[in-house]
Amino acid sequence: MAGIANRTPAVTSRTLDERCGAALFVKCESFQRMGAFKFRGAYNFLLSLSSEERERGVVAFSSGNHAQGVALAARLLGVRATIVMPTDAPAVKVAATRAYGAEIVYYERERSHREEIARSVARERGATLVPPFDDARIVAGAGTAALELIEDAGPLDACVVPVGGGGLMSGTAIAAHGVDPATAIYGVEPAAGDDFAQSLRRGERVTTGVPRTIADGLQTTAPGELTFAIARAHKCAIVTVTDEELRDAMRFAFERMKLVVEPSGAAALAALLQGRIPGIAGKRVGAIVSGGNVDPVRYAALIGA
Amino acid sequence: MAGIANRTPAVTSRTLDERCGAALFVKCESFQRMGAFKFRGAYNFLLSLSSEERERGVVAFSSGNHAQGVALAARLLGVRATIVMPTDAPAVKVAATRAYGAEIVYYERERSHREEIARSVARERGATLVPPFDDARIVAGAGTAALELIEDAGPLDACVVPVGGGGLMSGTAIAAHGVDPATAIYGVEPAAGDDFAQSLRRGERVTTGVPRTIADGLQTTAPGELTFAIARAHKCAIVTVTDEELRDAMRFAFERMKLVVEPSGAAALAALLQGRIPGIAGKRVGAIVSGGNVDPVRYAALIGA
Repeated sequence: MAGIANRTPAVTSRTLDERCGAALFVKCESFQRMGAFKFRGAYNFLLSLSSEERERGVVAFSSGNHAQGVALAARLLGVRATIVMPTDAPAVKVAATRAYGAEIVYYERERSHREEIARSVARERGATLVPPFDDARIVAGAGTAALELIEDAGPLDACVVPVGGGGLMSGTAIAAHGVDPATAIYGVEPAAGDDFAQSLRRGERVTTGVPRTIADGLQTTAPGELTFAIARAHKCAIVTVTDEELRDAMRFAFERMKLVVEPSGAAALAALLQGRIPGIAGKRVGAIVSGGNVDPVRYAALIGA
Repeated sequence: MAGIANRTPAVTSRTLDERCGAALFVKCESFQRMGAFKFRGAYNFLLSLSSEERERGVVAFSSGNHAQGVALAARLLGVRATIVMPTDAPAVKVAATRAYGAEIVYYERERSHREEIARSVARERGATLVPPFDDARIVAGAGTAALELIEDAGPLDACVVPVGGGGLMSGTAIAAHGVDPATAIYGVEPAAGDDFAQSLRRGERVTTGVPRTIADGLQTTAPGELTFAIARAHKCAIVTVTDEELRDAMRFAFERMKLVVEPSGAAALAALLQGRIPGIAGKRVGAIVSGGNVDPVRYAALIGA
């Protein structure tokens, strides 16, 4: 990733430290290229393709940060990218994805299944489907954020990250435990979509309905197969936060840290501000702000302006 | 300042570099303690006081970042601070100043002159008046931001900073020229309040009316005596930006850099985005985002949400 991904800073905040009673290091992946950590996994995945595969292009289904991550990585590597998006995707995300040079294929959210469409596009074109999280290359790419965080902040007693499909959490676990197996790994899910928490409790992957939450990047309905196995092997723990707590964390980031954070990106911060991560008093704790892509009108409403 | 002030990061943005055709290093003093570079000068000033002076306390007049900088520096050094503010100062700024433990003395904006009130409070109490910019200790404190920027970013061909009274610009000039006398120093003023530009053109300090601009931190009516002399000696150049250009820069910082920047804080960025800094093509350029203190409702309006 060196020289390709931005090496994002780990910022500190005395107010945050006082609120949490711990020494916090906040990795700002909101400053990553295309505004979120997703670029790391997408780029690492595309880098692993053979020259024949690259020539046939890639396909992804997403209306969010994964789409932009794949589109940008593809542009940088000279690969054709097709992104499957719902017809009602926000215009700003469609525009951003198109600005990176990707072709957009629309589907009707009610009438068809986006993964099937993406698979059929991939089949027709001989293109490679880039999965949003459940892939070793995506996980490894995501893990580079935690590696940098530990290089910059020093040893960490705990690391707290948002959880959707679990790509960032499992990458963080592998990276952090490669340095120090004692680092506790926490994933933070929206309370309305706690599929990962349920799955870890049951010891098997649970599928839920699409959660209603402002955290649009964390609306997964089940853990990945690989990410779930890694989370179990690395004893990752999950805590949840409500939408109200996500909003409070976004406002805290605005007022006290001067950071623009999107709802999903604020999950780790929200759990820390709510005192939901156990045993961190006096400890050194890393947290990842995973993204900052939110349009101005929605942002204003979410921070209560 | 080490261990007292936050060592704020110098961030980079490929989009900004493309827009400016230069390699930009943006020092985020919005991440400084109390949200602006003003803490540096205030702390350095208070540190220079004798123990007798510290016991008698300090006084400052400001409704903005200087007030909070003095209040916080005073609290850290165990010094009593009195801040003279207009009766119509924004509640949020009054609250922030009070939260740092300062006493607030109000004056009616129309009926009395704040500097006189501050001087009379200082006389009565034997307290020391902390000037907002026109003092060697304030200038030196402000200059530490540029020193850190050059340490982190490496040699700079030019350095661009907002200009109110000129404390930050003159501190930046001294710091940068101590490392490399060839670094060009640019100050950016609101077009509506170009007292520093007029003064440099005339070769003497010009006093203007209070400028009408959204850049509330840059509403000075004349350069300082010391800061003007330093600006001339160091051949600082001034360019101006309109309020609309400040808003555009705030929105650019929001959308592309995920940074919360206050209107005054965006001045250097605005000048760079407007191509108003000459001769920087292909060069290494430092810019200081000087603060991020803006309430959510005003922020939303300013970025067009």
